Amino acid sequence: MSKNRLEAFSDGVVAILITILVLELKIPHGSDWSALRPLLPVFLTYVLSFIFLAIYWNNHHHMLQATERINGKILWANTHLLFWLSLVPFVTGWMGENHFAAIPTAAYGMVLLGAAIAYTILLRCILAEQRPDSPLAIAVGRDRKGNISLLLYAVAVPLAFVNEWVADLIYVTVALIWLVPDSRIEERVKPKV
Amino acid sequence: MSKNRLEAFSDGVVAILITILVLELKIPHGSDWSALRPLLPVFLTYVLSFIFLAIYWNNHHHMLQATERINGKILWANTHLLFWLSLVPFVTGWMGENHFAAIPTAAYGMVLLGAAIAYTILLRCILAEQRPDSPLAIAVGRDRKGNISLLLYAVAVPLAFVNEWVADLIYVTVALIWLVPDSRIEERVKPKV
Amino acid sequence: MSKNRLEAFSDGVVAILITILVLELKIPHGSDWSALRPLLPVFLTYVLSFIFLAIYWNNHHHMLQATERINGKILWANTHLLFWLSLVPFVTGWMGENHFAAIPTAAYGMVLLGAAIAYTILLRCILAEQRPDSPLAIAVGRDRKGNISLLLYAVAVPLAFVNEWVADLIYVTVALIWLVPDSRIEERVKPKV
Amino acid sequence: MSKNRLEAFSDGVVAILITILVLELKIPHGSDWSALRPLLPVFLTYVLSFIFLAIYWNNHHHMLQATERINGKILWANTHLLFWLSLVPFVTGWMGENHFAAIPTAAYGMVLLGAAIAYTILLRCILAEQRPDSPLAIAVGRDRKGNISLLLYAVAVPLAFVNEWVADLIYVTVALIWLVPDSRIEERVKPKV
Repeated sequence: MSKNRLEAFSDGVVAILITILVLELKIPHGSDWSALRPLLPVFLTYVLSFIFLAIYWNNHHHMLQATERINGKILWANTHLLFWLSLVPFVTGWMGENHFAAIPTAAYGMVLLGAAIAYTILLRCILAEQRPDSPLAIAVGRDRKGNISLLLYAVAVPLAFVNEWVADLIYVTVALIWLVPDSRIEERVKPKV
Repeated sequence: MSKNRLEAFSDGVVAILITILVLELKIPHGSDWSALRPLLPVFLTYVLSFIFLAIYWNNHHHMLQATERINGKILWANTHLLFWLSLVPFVTGWMGENHFAAIPTAAYGMVLLGAAIAYTILLRCILAEQRPDSPLAIAVGRDRKGNISLLLYAVAVPLAFVNEWVADLIYVTVALIWLVPDSRIEERVKPKV
Repeated sequence: MSKNRLEAFSDGVVAILITILVLELKIPHGSDWSALRPLLPVFLTYVLSFIFLAIYWNNHHHMLQATERINGKILWANTHLLFWLSLVPFVTGWMGENHFAAIPTAAYGMVLLGAAIAYTILLRCILAEQRPDSPLAIAVGRDRKGNISLLLYAVAVPLAFVNEWVADLIYVTVALIWLVPDSRIEERVKPKV
Repeated sequence: MSKNRLEAFSDGVVAILITILVLELKIPHGSDWSALRPLLPVFLTYVLSFIFLAIYWNNHHHMLQATERINGKILWANTHLLFWLSLVPFVTGWMGENHFAAIPTAAYGMVLLGAAIAYTILLRCILAEQRPDSPLAIAVGRDRKGNISLLLYAVAVPLAFVNEWVADLIYVTVALIWLVPDSRIEERVKPKV
């Protein structure tokens, strides 16, 4: 089964999500800079979510690049990932409009955690279709980056109730960890392509 | 005539529909969990419609995979399917905001029924272009799953006026029936690809 | 220059336009059938515009199918067409919400006329790149269908001020003329493919 | 690494942005021409932004056409460009609704400047992957058009505070400069393809 439509559909959904985010930036009524001030927290969450969605698209791109066969399980694991990503605009707006209050910040982390788990499941489904020494399997290895992210999200969610800024800092940290494209895959797979 | 653009256009429309659904989840004004409570029915219908649209995309994917020739009739049968799917966000929002009231629940079922009929017509148009012993024709067979779904929808719509929860239960049942990707097609077509 | 991205971009824009249309169907607050009644004119314009956009996508599909070379002029003629199509959701909503009042009905016709002129320009740009006896040139011939549509729109716009229903009837007539896919192109081009 | 998904993703985002723009054209409540009058400035900014996004898509198309290898840096430079473009609907709406007031006009220029810088960075990243005498490198040359645009934007932003119409005139001028597709690339690359 061809992976092209899976890529195209995922690209479409992520492209729309990343664009719909901007609809949360409601156009202010005034025409001076102060009219933009209440938008600042919304804008900051916008930038953070834009980066997260771009990271997902980027890594998805690398992972699918190294994927040969698609089966029904992979299709649904991918849909599951898209479901969590589809909730990003909602929690982004909620967190931004409430100026990073504790509960919306925790909800934001829960959606990120859900997406990270879904991504891990998708990766496992894809690896299960490949030989244990496939380029992707070697590149991923013990998936340290993925596991650290899961751990950080799982820590950030309860921490949001203690101090929401610590949680926000952790989200930014995870983004920075991944901002470097998954060079493990990029390098190892390159010779094969 | 190439089927690539038909796939790309359908993927685009379904990707947008599945993402627009999330716009019905209006961001609440409060910042505590109780602010999310009124959203619960909207969220549940969101999940249900997300799954339905994913199922359609999935089966559409399998069906087109096994399609060789496209003609004008197939193009319009496909557009007809997309029309019914395009109404899903509307009835999802209506049912969710009215907490599964009888009439919106019936309307939801009518749109699902319309989409199911349109899907059946599209399948017939595609089969008419193929030999009777094509892999798709054999895989579909007497289309038991499709016929059961049509029957269940046709039963659910009037039932919604008696008890809306029975209708909702039927919708969930149909989703579960299809959640398993159409392994009939997947398996039979695989050897050919 | 490859025509694939031109097709992909146009498909994307039309897929989004055809889906954004549904956002004009505002979810009613009540939960009985009477709550849907004020939506009826909006729904009828929705159906009409859905069909028009589908016709454009369909004919665009056939035309590009028979196109080999793309140049800068064709790119911009295509963008010009997309511009007019992008105004369809706006005039659809305006006409629907005002129950087919004279001026919105005229505005709707002006957008359709603009799109039809843009389509004709695009067709001319594509033909200018081909030999006069190319399959597309022969299939299009004197472009009777296109010219009749232009004439009908040009008649409908002023007529909207006399009687808006006559104008609406003309729009429906043009839709019916085109609903049959452009079999001229489909048939003549087929042997070549 | 294949450039197809990069193109598809960028096409998707730009197609959605160019379409989302139209959502700023709020449907007026009245049904006569005077109801459209307050929309005129919004419509004019709509047309301008539509043209800018089309220019970016067009040039992006030409540039990627002449690109062979994609790496992680190019992916992120492209994401950076998409980020600035994603802000276009916001500043378009802000400028339009405030009838080209000074500060929104400056903000509009800042987003255009950001996008132009991001485009230049992307171009540099792509050129760094190619030989110095590649067709793209020769076609771009000293990138006069790009540098003039950067200069004009950098001049227009502060000028907006002196006289916003001068700034708007500069934006229109830049659009006109680019409206001619980048024939430098088109011509030089053609023989190679």
